[in-house]
Amino acid sequence: MSKGIISREQNYSQWYNDIVKRAGLADHSAVRGCMVIKPHGYAIWENMKKQLDVMFKETGHVNAYFPLFIPKSFLSREAEHVEGFAKECAVVTHHRLMNDPNGQGVIVDPEAKLEEELIVRPTSETIIWNTYKDWIQSYRDLPLLINQWANVVRWEMRTRPFLRTAEFLWQEGHTAHSSKDEAIEEAEKMHEVYTRFAEDYMAMPVIKGVKTENERFAGALETYTIEAMMQDKKALQAGTSHFLGQNFAKAFDVTFLNENNKEELVWATSWGVSTRLVGALIMTHSDDQGLVLPPKLAPIQVSIVPIPKPAEEIDKVAYQLEDELKKAGYSVFYDRDDKKRPGFKFAEHELKGIPVRLAIGKRDLANKVVEVARRDTGEKVSVPIDQIVKKVNELMKDIQKNLFDKALRFREANTHHADSWEEFEKIIKKEGGFVYAHWDGTSETELAIKDRTKATIRCIPLDRKEETGKCVFSGKPSAGRVIFAKAY
Amino acid sequence: MSKGIISREQNYSQWYNDIVKRAGLADHSAVRGCMVIKPHGYAIWENMKKQLDVMFKETGHVNAYFPLFIPKSFLSREAEHVEGFAKECAVVTHHRLMNDPNGQGVIVDPEAKLEEELIVRPTSETIIWNTYKDWIQSYRDLPLLINQWANVVRWEMRTRPFLRTAEFLWQEGHTAHSSKDEAIEEAEKMHEVYTRFAEDYMAMPVIKGVKTENERFAGALETYTIEAMMQDKKALQAGTSHFLGQNFAKAFDVTFLNENNKEELVWATSWGVSTRLVGALIMTHSDDQGLVLPPKLAPIQVSIVPIPKPAEEIDKVAYQLEDELKKAGYSVFYDRDDKKRPGFKFAEHELKGIPVRLAIGKRDLANKVVEVARRDTGEKVSVPIDQIVKKVNELMKDIQKNLFDKALRFREANTHHADSWEEFEKIIKKEGGFVYAHWDGTSETELAIKDRTKATIRCIPLDRKEETGKCVFSGKPSAGRVIFAKAY
Repeated sequence: MSKGIISREQNYSQWYNDIVKRAGLADHSAVRGCMVIKPHGYAIWENMKKQLDVMFKETGHVNAYFPLFIPKSFLSREAEHVEGFAKECAVVTHHRLMNDPNGQGVIVDPEAKLEEELIVRPTSETIIWNTYKDWIQSYRDLPLLINQWANVVRWEMRTRPFLRTAEFLWQEGHTAHSSKDEAIEEAEKMHEVYTRFAEDYMAMPVIKGVKTENERFAGALETYTIEAMMQDKKALQAGTSHFLGQNFAKAFDVTFLNENNKEELVWATSWGVSTRLVGALIMTHSDDQGLVLPPKLAPIQVSIVPIPKPAEEIDKVAYQLEDELKKAGYSVFYDRDDKKRPGFKFAEHELKGIPVRLAIGKRDLANKVVEVARRDTGEKVSVPIDQIVKKVNELMKDIQKNLFDKALRFREANTHHADSWEEFEKIIKKEGGFVYAHWDGTSETELAIKDRTKATIRCIPLDRKEETGKCVFSGKPSAGRVIFAKAY
Repeated sequence: MSKGIISREQNYSQWYNDIVKRAGLADHSAVRGCMVIKPHGYAIWENMKKQLDVMFKETGHVNAYFPLFIPKSFLSREAEHVEGFAKECAVVTHHRLMNDPNGQGVIVDPEAKLEEELIVRPTSETIIWNTYKDWIQSYRDLPLLINQWANVVRWEMRTRPFLRTAEFLWQEGHTAHSSKDEAIEEAEKMHEVYTRFAEDYMAMPVIKGVKTENERFAGALETYTIEAMMQDKKALQAGTSHFLGQNFAKAFDVTFLNENNKEELVWATSWGVSTRLVGALIMTHSDDQGLVLPPKLAPIQVSIVPIPKPAEEIDKVAYQLEDELKKAGYSVFYDRDDKKRPGFKFAEHELKGIPVRLAIGKRDLANKVVEVARRDTGEKVSVPIDQIVKKVNELMKDIQKNLFDKALRFREANTHHADSWEEFEKIIKKEGGFVYAHWDGTSETELAIKDRTKATIRCIPLDRKEETGKCVFSGKPSAGRVIFAKAY
């Protein structure tokens, strides 16, 4: 079976598009920049959602839902925010269509112009803080720990499925606090939640850091980020958590009476991850045979293939194993389609990233064994039927760990230190990857470096060594190394 | 504690609004007709979603996600559909804002006009069938059984929280089949799923029927509906499932090669329920003390109140019971807030519809008992501590059943037969409720009756008796009784 996937070596960007298409993850739509998330892609997102939702609830958050539309004037209230978000967005100007009097079809009814235009939310700080104004009067109403699962729209010019689309799905947490310290603690807590999710569930190692002023969320005083390295050595920002200070409270006049009955402005955070994580997952683990998924997020964890086709004695064992594995908590797919040959099924299950595949043949049955194949390494072993659940338990842990370790080794092998501009430029241009280098702390230098190399400061890592030095570009004093990389 | 809820008797409509507000279910927003779904309201919807999603997956469906926007021209493709949906909708005409050169704030950038306007989806048949065209080539690609959880927008003039809002949340199933019979079977199967959900989970009895031509979904050949009676005796359409024939396949040119290699048009269904169900739930069970929720959908199922306030010995028992009840699968809230008196907490838990409340007092503890109160009847009993889980198990079943039975009795008590126009008019105008009456089968008569009484035909019940008669309005022959009522 030709899988129609170009190799990463040949064309990484095309490889990604091929995986998305051939593994049935997403499709283009008739609307510019908007994708259709196909069932297999959506099932991965559903698993991500489910786990993140548990983690949000464990940390005391509840879900709510705010309107899709934001009155245009709201966007002007927070000055930096409007610069960051209001520019490329979908603007609703009318609320009615009418039959075209000159012919066929429908036209916009000119009589139905809105008094104030509505913006399809690019992010919901403004509409949410306008609501919080009504919900918060006293310190007793705080903290307010709310999350929203929603779709948002940003009118991107260059789009790629999952990584950058005009419409995408995400969650956005918006919390309100009575003190600065509590808000910072919240932003840091969610930064940690995202880190745990990325590493423990996506098997994707990330670097925790804060953004430079230049790369911060529009309206934030501090943006915490997790940065991952993709297989082409480029960085991908996988989740951000923002300490917003009192900026939105000021813009929407949200105050509370403290315990001493004095009026104070409320402190805010917001934090989000999106369907972009599906893109990150693909790019972190997949290979030239197709998708590779960490067991904890795989929609189907175990497949069973009858060799060469379904038969009574094979069915018996297959159904028994399916049953036992389901009881052990796995999602199982017994592929009984008798129009497809085993080789075709193997290729298809590889393409879809199913972590473990069982093949049941008549000859094996005589020996009371089943062939067990793991997707990540391709390794196959014969395992006694009564040992299958135990073996699958082991493999799932092993695959999850192996994927993480492999990605971590890859990142480490592609992480460099540069101490001169020549070295820096050479690494960024020839080798790629993450470069730890000294930086003088100015936006000017940051932008000059971006201009010359396309590399941006991904983050100021939280665990960076105490080490002063000289800026790799300007030669001015530097308080420590930051991470540069080209990024998605 | 004054709950700020008017009685149903005094003003039913205001009572509903009071419950929505006071129980923390929803709030108005700054955007006309759009509501904010507050955490308690959203948690009910989450529980509905969770259960429906299980039922959809059990019946072989998978989830996917299609774009929020629909190109304007798509809506014109299916003639009836455009009449039904394209008129009152949110129209996106531009994709950029700019700083106002004459002053403050932002204005729509006139340069950023879209070539073709985009409609915010009022329902997704058109964009989905435009996609299915690419997904369906052969009979092997069928059936396609897809569901989407999404937000939709219909520019309603008169809105009420949950019952009718410009933006609402829903699920829409869209399936494609190779034969008419299979599509009808699917539409009927989902009709049955909705019935089971309404009755077994919402404890809301419904009547299964089909809509008259006049009340059908725009573009459907048959609309299956479930109709419930609210406490003001008005009907509420709680879910619909549509057999769409080949209308959308024709409009979007979706054909398949059958087993004989001949090209045929694909058959379609669609089906949906929305956040309107939250409104239906409120109106079916709640009382003048607040929300009443069926245990299977209640976000908090058991609350524990320390009398008069938390203390070491009370905590010990409370945490133990909390733990046992959580292990038994219940969501539990131990209300340790020491700033509120027990009476206040009781009222608050009643308001929120928590089905079972435990009160732990020191005197009771000496006797090793706890006071157990049920929300539906207000009944209280003392139960030995070691019998609590057993008692809660019983009560949950009992409350769930009692709510259903009570609603059914109410519907039966308010269901009438009318055999003359005088009788019909008198019942509709004075008593309300459901009226079984003969109808001549014409839209003309249906509309004339609506015009005079505001009553519409809710459905042609599936289980109606074989009984011919004379139309209550026109006197012409009738093939059987249909159900008339005023409706939400």
